[in-house]
Amino acid sequence: MNIDGKPFRTVWKDPTSDAVRIIDQRHLPFKFVIEDLRQVNDVATAIVDMHVRGAGCIGATAGYGIYLATLEATESRTPEKTLRDAADHLLATRPTAVNLRWAVDRQMTALQSLPPEQWAESSLQTATAIADEDAAACASIGQHGLRIIEELAAGKSDGEPVQILTHCNAGWLAFVDHGSATAPIYAAHDRGIPLHIWVDETRPRNQGARLTAWELGQHGVPHTLIVDNAGGHLMQRSQVDLVITGTDRTTHTGDVANKIGTYLKALAARDNDVPFYVALPSSTFDWNLSDGFAIPIEERSPDEISLMSGLVSPEADSETEVRLSPRDCPAANPAFDVTPRHLITGLITERGICQADESSIRALFPDPT
Amino acid sequence: MNIDGKPFRTVWKDPTSDAVRIIDQRHLPFKFVIEDLRQVNDVATAIVDMHVRGAGCIGATAGYGIYLATLEATESRTPEKTLRDAADHLLATRPTAVNLRWAVDRQMTALQSLPPEQWAESSLQTATAIADEDAAACASIGQHGLRIIEELAAGKSDGEPVQILTHCNAGWLAFVDHGSATAPIYAAHDRGIPLHIWVDETRPRNQGARLTAWELGQHGVPHTLIVDNAGGHLMQRSQVDLVITGTDRTTHTGDVANKIGTYLKALAARDNDVPFYVALPSSTFDWNLSDGFAIPIEERSPDEISLMSGLVSPEADSETEVRLSPRDCPAANPAFDVTPRHLITGLITERGICQADESSIRALFPDPT
Repeated sequence: MNIDGKPFRTVWKDPTSDAVRIIDQRHLPFKFVIEDLRQVNDVATAIVDMHVRGAGCIGATAGYGIYLATLEATESRTPEKTLRDAADHLLATRPTAVNLRWAVDRQMTALQSLPPEQWAESSLQTATAIADEDAAACASIGQHGLRIIEELAAGKSDGEPVQILTHCNAGWLAFVDHGSATAPIYAAHDRGIPLHIWVDETRPRNQGARLTAWELGQHGVPHTLIVDNAGGHLMQRSQVDLVITGTDRTTHTGDVANKIGTYLKALAARDNDVPFYVALPSSTFDWNLSDGFAIPIEERSPDEISLMSGLVSPEADSETEVRLSPRDCPAANPAFDVTPRHLITGLITERGICQADESSIRALFPDPT
Repeated sequence: MNIDGKPFRTVWKDPTSDAVRIIDQRHLPFKFVIEDLRQVNDVATAIVDMHVRGAGCIGATAGYGIYLATLEATESRTPEKTLRDAADHLLATRPTAVNLRWAVDRQMTALQSLPPEQWAESSLQTATAIADEDAAACASIGQHGLRIIEELAAGKSDGEPVQILTHCNAGWLAFVDHGSATAPIYAAHDRGIPLHIWVDETRPRNQGARLTAWELGQHGVPHTLIVDNAGGHLMQRSQVDLVITGTDRTTHTGDVANKIGTYLKALAARDNDVPFYVALPSSTFDWNLSDGFAIPIEERSPDEISLMSGLVSPEADSETEVRLSPRDCPAANPAFDVTPRHLITGLITERGICQADESSIRALFPDPT
């Protein structure tokens, strides 16, 4: 999507050098920094230290990481071992990231039958394919979701915007391009449909305030930041036509584990007859799990609640961290919650929209991998 | 309630001087500051600049403000005019604060039939009565609410705490003592019932993280701070036995306007069969309004969302403000939401517990003023 009017992806091969380039998302929204990754170690650091985050973006970056690894491996005396070590290094960066493992495995499978002198070219092709497929899946989610927004727009008077609420960042920054929850939004905006997006700030890590607000602003989509507490009130006052969120994991029966607080918005949507959609590439389906409440919920550091960082002045070069609560105050920080399928109007996937139930999901995906 | 083991009220007459003393709540939770108010102007500043906040606390402070005004008035050449001007000054500090007007009117009515030489003694008596009555009403709310907690405790195994979630600060800091939502908690804790309180941080102003966490900690009540997004998840996992909140205004039909986000917790409570109680002194009933959605909702500054203040280090002498969102990002900040009566299990008042409906409320309060 656009930054300052210029199209970007979150990760790409620099056409003028061997480097892989990423947007270093740690500095957003205050600084836009492009980082050059020249070695597989740079890629590992970028993933571990969250220069990049989000399932699709991590997977694509790891794919390019194997390309950089092949450049190093073919220079070494033991190319196979060097490549295998690099792959293991990448896999260890975020062990629970499904897309990371999938991208690395795909690369390694393709390379194992090739002689080292063909690795670089082949792995760059595969890395590019992984990134292109991620972008294409999100674009497809956008086109399917666009229909929902078009229908809502048809019920509006001239110029009146369709009002959409989103939680966390399931934006293009979390993928290679378009995003999942944001893909229908960008598609509708690019089609000229008037929109207004309510952006949940998404405590504790504020991905809404930091990332979603920034990317919508850069692409020119009208939006307003709200605290996570406000969405129910806005729905009661008919100021929300549609909720779209992403998902971190979706059971094949339609339960959704997403950023903490998603469940509360789904309850408010049901109470106010607001359609509640979840957008996802099918890679986030868990084909083995039937009960969303069996999904393990990560408990993160209490410091994410007690401390907050931001800019002390527009001129500040880096962020400052401040303490928000009494020094000895304990805090609990579950990172995700589960929205049960009966609260979800539909799932927007790259193959189309289905209901959040097993038979509808299986009808779209009869051949899950 | 206790601070460092010593009982305090939020406002009181200094027994050794003419001064009125308050806890300057702006500095909490990082510094405990007692401020001496010696003139009615000091009181007006304390109310306008929110050294004190919360309905009961503002009312009692204004009551003591009239006492200080009488000291100035009886020294002046035009005592009646000086007193009337002081009263008007106090009334203008926070025009929508019902308790402030009520306290000032009560003082002025009592004084108008008395000669100036009796004003000081009489107004100090009235101010003390206002504060005592506020504390007594909250204590009574505590005793009625205690029964709910006792019943829940009876269903627990030995030592297992009753888990209570609360939103915002309806604590003793918002009243003269005990608080409304916290009164049953303090009563149960002082009775030796094991408790654990989930404290919603309550964005955007973080009254939970700053005030409720601090006052529970000072009084020794076990508690854990959470983001506002987390309550639904905890209820789904059976980690909440009871929700108690306060209210800013309650219709005589049982609808509750309280801090933004209360409605989302009420929805989650209903979805998980968790009892949801609202605690209130009857002064917050609006006897003229039948529909909660007719209550005007204050829209506050977007800066409360975009900026956050806290301590940069434990040694810092004052708080630092940081920006959390892109500089040009618009934000909307509705301060309250309405929880419709059908989501409320009961209202805990100083006269007892009733259902959130007109006939139950009228049965407890047949003679509203």
